[in-house]
Amino acid sequence: MKSYQTVERYCRRLAHLGHLQAIAGWDEAVMMPKGGAEMRGAALAELAGLRAEIFRKSEFSEALDQAESESAALNEWQKANLREARMHHRHMMAVDPKLFEEKARLTVICEQAWRELRAANNWKEFQPYLKRLLTLVQEEAKSRASASGLPVYDAMLEMYEPGLTTATVDRVFNQLKQVLPDLIERVIDRQKSRQVTHLGRTVPVDKQKPMMRDFMNWVGFNFDHGRLDESHHPFCGGVPDDVRLTTRYSESDFLSGLMGVLHETGHALYEQNLPKEWREQPIGQARGMAVHESQSLFVEMQIGRSREFWQYAAPILKRSLGESHDPHHFWDPENLFFEASRVEKSYIRVDADEVTYPAHVILRYEIEKALLLGDLAVEDLPVVWDEKMRAYLALSTLGNDANGCMQDVHWPAGLFGYFPSYTLGAIIAAQLFSTVEKDLGRPREMIARGEVAPIMSWLKEKVWSVGSHQTTEGLLKQATGRGLDIEPFLLHLETRYLMG
Amino acid sequence: MKSYQTVERYCRRLAHLGHLQAIAGWDEAVMMPKGGAEMRGAALAELAGLRAEIFRKSEFSEALDQAESESAALNEWQKANLREARMHHRHMMAVDPKLFEEKARLTVICEQAWRELRAANNWKEFQPYLKRLLTLVQEEAKSRASASGLPVYDAMLEMYEPGLTTATVDRVFNQLKQVLPDLIERVIDRQKSRQVTHLGRTVPVDKQKPMMRDFMNWVGFNFDHGRLDESHHPFCGGVPDDVRLTTRYSESDFLSGLMGVLHETGHALYEQNLPKEWREQPIGQARGMAVHESQSLFVEMQIGRSREFWQYAAPILKRSLGESHDPHHFWDPENLFFEASRVEKSYIRVDADEVTYPAHVILRYEIEKALLLGDLAVEDLPVVWDEKMRAYLALSTLGNDANGCMQDVHWPAGLFGYFPSYTLGAIIAAQLFSTVEKDLGRPREMIARGEVAPIMSWLKEKVWSVGSHQTTEGLLKQATGRGLDIEPFLLHLETRYLMG
Repeated sequence: MKSYQTVERYCRRLAHLGHLQAIAGWDEAVMMPKGGAEMRGAALAELAGLRAEIFRKSEFSEALDQAESESAALNEWQKANLREARMHHRHMMAVDPKLFEEKARLTVICEQAWRELRAANNWKEFQPYLKRLLTLVQEEAKSRASASGLPVYDAMLEMYEPGLTTATVDRVFNQLKQVLPDLIERVIDRQKSRQVTHLGRTVPVDKQKPMMRDFMNWVGFNFDHGRLDESHHPFCGGVPDDVRLTTRYSESDFLSGLMGVLHETGHALYEQNLPKEWREQPIGQARGMAVHESQSLFVEMQIGRSREFWQYAAPILKRSLGESHDPHHFWDPENLFFEASRVEKSYIRVDADEVTYPAHVILRYEIEKALLLGDLAVEDLPVVWDEKMRAYLALSTLGNDANGCMQDVHWPAGLFGYFPSYTLGAIIAAQLFSTVEKDLGRPREMIARGEVAPIMSWLKEKVWSVGSHQTTEGLLKQATGRGLDIEPFLLHLETRYLMG
Repeated sequence: MKSYQTVERYCRRLAHLGHLQAIAGWDEAVMMPKGGAEMRGAALAELAGLRAEIFRKSEFSEALDQAESESAALNEWQKANLREARMHHRHMMAVDPKLFEEKARLTVICEQAWRELRAANNWKEFQPYLKRLLTLVQEEAKSRASASGLPVYDAMLEMYEPGLTTATVDRVFNQLKQVLPDLIERVIDRQKSRQVTHLGRTVPVDKQKPMMRDFMNWVGFNFDHGRLDESHHPFCGGVPDDVRLTTRYSESDFLSGLMGVLHETGHALYEQNLPKEWREQPIGQARGMAVHESQSLFVEMQIGRSREFWQYAAPILKRSLGESHDPHHFWDPENLFFEASRVEKSYIRVDADEVTYPAHVILRYEIEKALLLGDLAVEDLPVVWDEKMRAYLALSTLGNDANGCMQDVHWPAGLFGYFPSYTLGAIIAAQLFSTVEKDLGRPREMIARGEVAPIMSWLKEKVWSVGSHQTTEGLLKQATGRGLDIEPFLLHLETRYLMG
């Protein structure tokens, strides 16, 4: 028991440093003037070094070993906490600190090159940067594989999705791939006959701000434990007790701003409702990136872009942002729903709708796996990207690498294994919603009436308050009665986009 | 040389942690929702613990010893840096970590009690809290005295004013005490005949904001390396590369808001212009609290509340905040100067004008010295406070402890030795300005024309870029040719308030 308590003490120290990292990181993105960057970088590097130092103390690893050998005395949550602590420890110890440092150094350089060279659509000059970084990431992946006993790509996937394997991802992505191209064509064809009215004027930011806060309150965001600010790239940062959302206001497009805020609020609700009594322990953290994304997509896609949401929201928005004289029926629920559910094939993942989005992700997943395993050379990236874009979305990116294989920051930032989370999140969100329909009766009618509290309570019980007590698969089984399942997602797409 | 480099490396690490402390502290005051307090407190305590750990590494103290024995090989700046590093190290090592912890714990309790009991004017219940804390501070002071070889109060003074002694403070404060009561009476008497017009309407915050920024730019604040935000208690925080000012906007009183912003900008200019090449070293830090306060008071009092400032600023303010039709001459330079230079005897230090302010400080200095040395019991504080207030400002505080000995947060926060800085700063500001008059010719005319850049350059050369290379006395001697001198301050008060 004493050893277990030592483990908890170490985890608590790491959580404190994580807190400072989160707040300084938020500040960097939201508040910091540009002249503060150099010293902030140095301070954050020091913090990362201190974290690594704490992980590497022999007292910590000895306590882990000892606590595991005495784990019979622990209760279920403590056991699971110990399992998570071990995983975090293994993640940190798997990689040589020199490789960490070298990767940190190279990613800064690679990201910088990416920013400039993407703007210039200059793949040729960017390629060697990515190549050097990839070599390092391959080395990292090998170290992680040998430390975890997992296959190479699985070892990277585990960083974001503990418990999800390449086999599972392959299974659901292959199912999707079979259905998606035809589905996309049918949806686009069907939407051709829609008559959509655009607002044709701007909405002042001053009017949007209270509206955004109202909808955040509506789904249950607690402003005593969080804030909404502005940043160039919207994100959800901070710590569970103090969640920092950001958005970017556009006077010409309040609707996608609102959808963005709902998305980030989904992330925030998860963080704010993690188990309070495990705040500073590994088990008190969110399960992984796919589950996290499922919560943001639950609020944005399952609720926010539903026909029923617009039945509830349209009159409210008309009152706060619109005018009573609306001859072109812009503020009609059906018109706003049309605006929020438009599907089109496009080059850019971050702008994609929920029907075409999986194609962007599957493409990246297949490519990054091949890159990592050495089955694809960096040189061939543009050609393969173009091939897959043509196959999945009938778009060519030849000569357009800025909007092709250079569009995302993930690879220049050294993130391999992250992309699947986005689509796994969409699948999980649909799977959860379909269970809500079984458990609560008619959630769609609740949404149309604006009564989402029971749905949120369900999420709190089944997902948020679970923290990392379960693996992703375990959480899904407990919440929905089965492991990761593509069917509810496909049904969701068909219902929303091909019916009604 | 290698040992010296080890010292620098340790100092750099401490600076990185200081950076995170500063930003998280700013965030706490300006951004953090109330629900974030508990975890923030834990994270900052962790950081304080890590700082103490780094200080206590034997490698650090051995490197200090070794570097001192080899200091002949160092240049002047390195030698001074080593001297400062030693002082910081001594400050940290002087006090038993358990005493530190106990003080941290008690001050939180004492501040909390103070907040509630001051609001209720309840000295009786507050007294035991202060008594317990004072016992601890006395112990701290004794430890510091024995570590530094200084007398007890001097050892506390050194924390804020390295190189300033009780003897010096006594000398200038006694000079002031002889002159002040009569001076205050004469000024108040003289101001009775003034005809002052008040604005009688509010000025929207939206109009004040750009105006504040304009004046910050005017004195040289660099917004690439800093920000202006809002907080309940205005302060200057952050780090030299990223200085975080705050203000509190009042629609009914833009003038004191502007003076407050100029004050904090004075602090900020000092920070922003500390020697860049010594950023993360002790010598690259501001000299001490008195010199810091001298910079804020230079900008607020020497420049901002001068008749000449209003000659420059009045037309600008009239254009941006006022109206061309101004029948009661509110926007006349002389009227605004009258508004900015009103003198009155009052209970509250933070609201006091520059003529009566020293009386508030001298009173606290005398009392805290007596408390610390055991010459005054906490029980007798209200009576002694009342006696001194009557003697210095002809006001009685009997039965009014909320506006008497309970008004400041300093003692409940465990800060003893800090109060003198305020008035020492005012004295230094006047001493520096009188030297500017000698060195630059006619700075008052420059201010009236709005050309303050040469004055700021002078400060940069003589004060800001010096960092902690000199002691306070050394800095003053180098800048003004003499040590701390009360005469320019007295002359300043007489010139501004009894002439013209």
